[in-house]
Amino acid sequence: MPTEENAAQADLLAAVTELGSALRGLVDASVSTTVDPAELRAAAATAREVSTRLAAGRRSRDQLSALDDPAQFRRVYNPVSGVGSALAPPLAIRRVDGGVEAEATLGLPYEGPPSYVHGGMSALLLDQVLSSAAHAAGLWGMTGRLELDYRRPVPLGTALLLRAAVAESRGRRVAIAGSIALAEQPDQALVQARGMWVTPRPEQVEEYFSTITDASGRPSRPRRPDDAATVVDGA
Amino acid sequence: MPTEENAAQADLLAAVTELGSALRGLVDASVSTTVDPAELRAAAATAREVSTRLAAGRRSRDQLSALDDPAQFRRVYNPVSGVGSALAPPLAIRRVDGGVEAEATLGLPYEGPPSYVHGGMSALLLDQVLSSAAHAAGLWGMTGRLELDYRRPVPLGTALLLRAAVAESRGRRVAIAGSIALAEQPDQALVQARGMWVTPRPEQVEEYFSTITDASGRPSRPRRPDDAATVVDGA
Repeated sequence: MPTEENAAQADLLAAVTELGSALRGLVDASVSTTVDPAELRAAAATAREVSTRLAAGRRSRDQLSALDDPAQFRRVYNPVSGVGSALAPPLAIRRVDGGVEAEATLGLPYEGPPSYVHGGMSALLLDQVLSSAAHAAGLWGMTGRLELDYRRPVPLGTALLLRAAVAESRGRRVAIAGSIALAEQPDQALVQARGMWVTPRPEQVEEYFSTITDASGRPSRPRRPDDAATVVDGA
Repeated sequence: MPTEENAAQADLLAAVTELGSALRGLVDASVSTTVDPAELRAAAATAREVSTRLAAGRRSRDQLSALDDPAQFRRVYNPVSGVGSALAPPLAIRRVDGGVEAEATLGLPYEGPPSYVHGGMSALLLDQVLSSAAHAAGLWGMTGRLELDYRRPVPLGTALLLRAAVAESRGRRVAIAGSIALAEQPDQALVQARGMWVTPRPEQVEEYFSTITDASGRPSRPRRPDDAATVVDGA
């Protein structure tokens, strides 16, 4: 990639990251504020103005963002790990010996029972961490089955450690296990997950993703990370 | 409750709903926009200003919002069903014969594989719908186990129907089943869920929730919906 294009991509990534972070802060402020209704309405009006300005350009649902590369599994708006997603904590998932791990401290936007993380939010985060463990092992697939055991409530405002590793890979199926624990007690799982990820058959990839293009309009389908260097889609 | 207080609560709820809706729109615009980095940075700067204004008042993690009532399971910032949550679609979960159901159409903020709902997002939504089925049956508990089977990818931008019903209730354990389907084909599940919810023992409720108060500072612990009329916490 030419240096000028690299610099433009880096600048765009920095701006997307800045907006994601600002909106995450705004979502947090919006669920914890105690200001009066007039202030809430003023905030809403400003938010609508900003939305209108951002809507001056809009990609379609079938078009990946200019920063995304499904072969590298770079998805900047992923709702768990995407730096540009206000829904995401975001998890910075890194490779470690034998798998992946990530830290997170979750605030009031992620609350289920008072002062604890929503049970479904734990499932959302674990689904992503298990999926990333498959990617880290050079595999890819979509969630086929996910089983979660909740042993203790997961507290808000407390440093958490999420971990996952591939247990077994056979044909198109990958068995993965993971957990959420307090960062201080990483070996006492609060929530345990086991999942089966399934790599779609080529005809399923075609069926599911035939309309997907990158930002330039070129067909772009998900594929194994280790296929990234090979020619795909006739490109 | 006096009429004046009712009116103030209704006004606050309307304002919280308006801000939730505006921020949801902003999150959607932020992940689909194609405007240049300068516009993204301008949006981020405005978002930070709004956050600062909202932060003029802030409740603590142990204090419920002024609109919340855990005995009625009204949680306006719930990340799945809360009208005030920018993370939530939000699901409007209603009672039906034998259980609950809700419709949703999910946009790019909820994306996992290109043009499909994130697998973990399906788990998040189902966890809430299953939990609501327990509440609708006059029970309450926290997720003990959740099993999800993913049969077909769940498309973005398409009307979905989520359903759940209690299968069996025995002592402190409630077995619940649910699904996500296309609204057009409600009986063909794309994702199926089975869960076990567990009502905490009184000593666990005390351990988990002893510090929780309502907006006025009065102790407020989660409890069965049919206990709502009884005196709890010595209040």
